[in-house]
Amino acid sequence: MASGAGPEVTTEAAVQVLKERILREGRNLGHGILKVDGFINHQVDPGLMDACGRELARRFAGVGATKVLTAEISGIAPALTTALHLGLPCVYARKSRPITMPDQVFLTLAPSHTKGRTVELIVSPEYLSHGERVLIIDDFLATGQTILGLARLAEAAGSTVVGIGAVIEKTFEGGRALLARLGVPIEALAQVTDMRAGRIVLAD
Amino acid sequence: MASGAGPEVTTEAAVQVLKERILREGRNLGHGILKVDGFINHQVDPGLMDACGRELARRFAGVGATKVLTAEISGIAPALTTALHLGLPCVYARKSRPITMPDQVFLTLAPSHTKGRTVELIVSPEYLSHGERVLIIDDFLATGQTILGLARLAEAAGSTVVGIGAVIEKTFEGGRALLARLGVPIEALAQVTDMRAGRIVLAD
Repeated sequence: MASGAGPEVTTEAAVQVLKERILREGRNLGHGILKVDGFINHQVDPGLMDACGRELARRFAGVGATKVLTAEISGIAPALTTALHLGLPCVYARKSRPITMPDQVFLTLAPSHTKGRTVELIVSPEYLSHGERVLIIDDFLATGQTILGLARLAEAAGSTVVGIGAVIEKTFEGGRALLARLGVPIEALAQVTDMRAGRIVLAD
Repeated sequence: MASGAGPEVTTEAAVQVLKERILREGRNLGHGILKVDGFINHQVDPGLMDACGRELARRFAGVGATKVLTAEISGIAPALTTALHLGLPCVYARKSRPITMPDQVFLTLAPSHTKGRTVELIVSPEYLSHGERVLIIDDFLATGQTILGLARLAEAAGSTVVGIGAVIEKTFEGGRALLARLGVPIEALAQVTDMRAGRIVLAD
């Protein structure tokens, strides 16, 4: 990154910086809700997100991905920076069909824990093709339902999921076990292992 | 950008590459709707978006911005890359209030031409403060209503809008004239001047 974007966060330090930000600025709102909207999803720290993307790109450098897939809204930032460092296009599934999309689309339903309802995930067949090798990136891996929905879209398109990456995993919501059936590498930069009684506990 | 992200698009070439992509891949869907969802908003070309962000950052290097503000969803990619190259935080206004947001927020209504309805734009007071100098970035400048809504949010927060940047401007929808009242520099990387009768005509 040869820009004027403030102090550069190196790949090696990115994970450490991320963990420090979660512990310092994250808030436990109860019911497993982790508020990190000061640097991940509402206000974004672009330098940190770029470093997270670089680290995710490094971890998935060997999986032969041809495309990065995420879900709007908060997946866009980490997916974009990961795709940038892998030199791949990035597709974000829409939650409502824009008028620029063809009538026939790939659509699946995914229950959203934080929204308390089911959301649609929609991808145009123009941008997800047979034979594509798809790396799924999201801000959170929690119940795994959104990521599993993205995997269903990829499979409907005849493409293959080759990896799953998240900035933050909540290990106690079972997503990793749910996604294990896909048989692909799963990487999370920071793992929150316990949010009981107001705690925010990270794995080493 | 010292990454493996494919051939680097330099700042100087970014605008030319953007224009070529619009002419080659853009589709005129009628009613002023320009489909560029193969590289801007649904599938994103991260290298091109990074180059666009670098060019927008260059153009606004002198305005003294302290924050980049955009609206979800399709504004996130260009705002993030612009903010990255300016070394500033990026805030995206939400269109529905997530559970992580406080009860009291800044909210305004903006008519959406492409959606055919009014949308809410919501920013948490945690991330838009009195005295902030706000650079507004979006993928499109068309009617200007979304950007004007973002400007109202900034003003409600007691901050000052110092510039407006867009990747693509549709000059025939009057947005630039509407926003002129703000008295700030307005930059668009590519200007579509005519979409009548199936045409896509760009300014030089």
